[in-house]
Amino acid sequence: MKCGLVAADGAVVHRETRPTPRAAGGRAVLDALLETVVELGQKATADGHRVRAIGVVVPGIISAAGTVVAENLAWAGTPVRTELVAAVGDDVPIVLAHDVRAGGYAELRQGALKGTSNSLFLPLGTGIAAAMVIDGRLVSGDGYAGELGHTRFIHGDAAELCACGQWGCLETVASAAALARRYAARSGRVVDGSREVLELLAAGDEIAAEVWRDALTVLVDALVLYTTLVAPTRIAIGGGLVGAGETLLQPLRDGVHARLTFQREPEIVAAVLGEEAGCLGAALYAWDRVEEIEEQS
Amino acid sequence: MKCGLVAADGAVVHRETRPTPRAAGGRAVLDALLETVVELGQKATADGHRVRAIGVVVPGIISAAGTVVAENLAWAGTPVRTELVAAVGDDVPIVLAHDVRAGGYAELRQGALKGTSNSLFLPLGTGIAAAMVIDGRLVSGDGYAGELGHTRFIHGDAAELCACGQWGCLETVASAAALARRYAARSGRVVDGSREVLELLAAGDEIAAEVWRDALTVLVDALVLYTTLVAPTRIAIGGGLVGAGETLLQPLRDGVHARLTFQREPEIVAAVLGEEAGCLGAALYAWDRVEEIEEQS
Repeated sequence: MKCGLVAADGAVVHRETRPTPRAAGGRAVLDALLETVVELGQKATADGHRVRAIGVVVPGIISAAGTVVAENLAWAGTPVRTELVAAVGDDVPIVLAHDVRAGGYAELRQGALKGTSNSLFLPLGTGIAAAMVIDGRLVSGDGYAGELGHTRFIHGDAAELCACGQWGCLETVASAAALARRYAARSGRVVDGSREVLELLAAGDEIAAEVWRDALTVLVDALVLYTTLVAPTRIAIGGGLVGAGETLLQPLRDGVHARLTFQREPEIVAAVLGEEAGCLGAALYAWDRVEEIEEQS
Repeated sequence: MKCGLVAADGAVVHRETRPTPRAAGGRAVLDALLETVVELGQKATADGHRVRAIGVVVPGIISAAGTVVAENLAWAGTPVRTELVAAVGDDVPIVLAHDVRAGGYAELRQGALKGTSNSLFLPLGTGIAAAMVIDGRLVSGDGYAGELGHTRFIHGDAAELCACGQWGCLETVASAAALARRYAARSGRVVDGSREVLELLAAGDEIAAEVWRDALTVLVDALVLYTTLVAPTRIAIGGGLVGAGETLLQPLRDGVHARLTFQREPEIVAAVLGEEAGCLGAALYAWDRVEEIEEQS
């Protein structure tokens, strides 16, 4: 869990990282979250700050009532808002949001998408979800929008079953996790994540080159698709894979450029906020809520 | 050209259809448009109405300056706004918009998408473009958004070259024009458009059944894709093919239902405004402009 204290101007005055006790189950994850929120509040007060709002982002779908479905956290309708209110009271607003969309919002406000009104934040991490910016706002679809990672780009016999139950999703080939898994499956050698695959790629390993080419092919497909449908002016790639830098970005630019005919070509850039994007986005959403409330009163 | 006079409450007080002189070239098409606008204005005045605004929608991409690129009309940067102002003056606002998006706007305001805030209008006509409703507004992408018809759904050797220069676009298999073209190519028999293919389908013709199945397959792919990415609550299918009614809609519903896993399932319905949707949308946009101007003054 990335967490922090963020001032009204977006400056991060304190940051820390805590473990997510996934293996211990959904209740343990929730307790760890509640403890974190309580302790960060205490730290803020001890440091002479006043907590004005709480922003929490999660990798899942949030209902209007604040219950969350998040497979990764073993949450199946977990009443996160109710539990947060029970833990810290309701003196200050509590904002719940989707982690990738919050990351996209941070990139939009302070990062690689600043100044755009139609753009895409696409983090390539363990999974792939997208944050769509349209008319200057993040698209939520009541929590369901942006699942570009679960769109089919592999067809026929080559399609692998995705964790989501569909076949041939982008995520099965182009996520950081998929790179490591596919390399291991082909080489018979277990690797330490996508970072090691990228090192092998740089060292001239042929199997690494093969799984990398597969990833680039479907990523180009996905970017062409999104460009055709939504016409973004800029696409910011984030997540672990963007550590590859131009090794990733230049083939994506070339591939997209070669495929487009009538479409408007987007800039393709690296996201700049890294792993903190979601955390920062949570805080920005929370401050937005403070502003809204002040405007109404 | 579908055209009409529309009152402030959206009621169509006069409607007519005029030929588009495509064969005579882009200048002739523009002249026909200008003549239509002038004559409709004269008719409105003669009938005792007062023209408050002019809405014109075109099947093309409109620049901020009001020039239009529309391959179908042989317009390559044609200064439509300037010519309209030269023809009728600038006493009333002139609104230019994209025809399919305007159709979607009409369906949103008065038709099958009324009451939705995240939905899709997908007319299957000569070509296929989509009008995306997100957060209650039509997505424009500066004129470039919504080209679902030019997204690749056919792969490998089966992909046909599309008029847009890409291969395997939805439009090459699932448009009304594609149905007729593909039937003719397989049967060696020229047919009178998609309507005849649908008649042959109803009569048990096997080739018609084959091209119809191909169209349904890629349409399901397209609806699943859009649902995964944008999570609409309702999709309204329009255009000539929706004349097939439940023969089209029920297989689409069944196909989408079978494919979705974690996504929110949209209602799939027929659009209700038919060929007039674009014309009505032009008028609704024009009245919106009148309201905006009144609010500012």
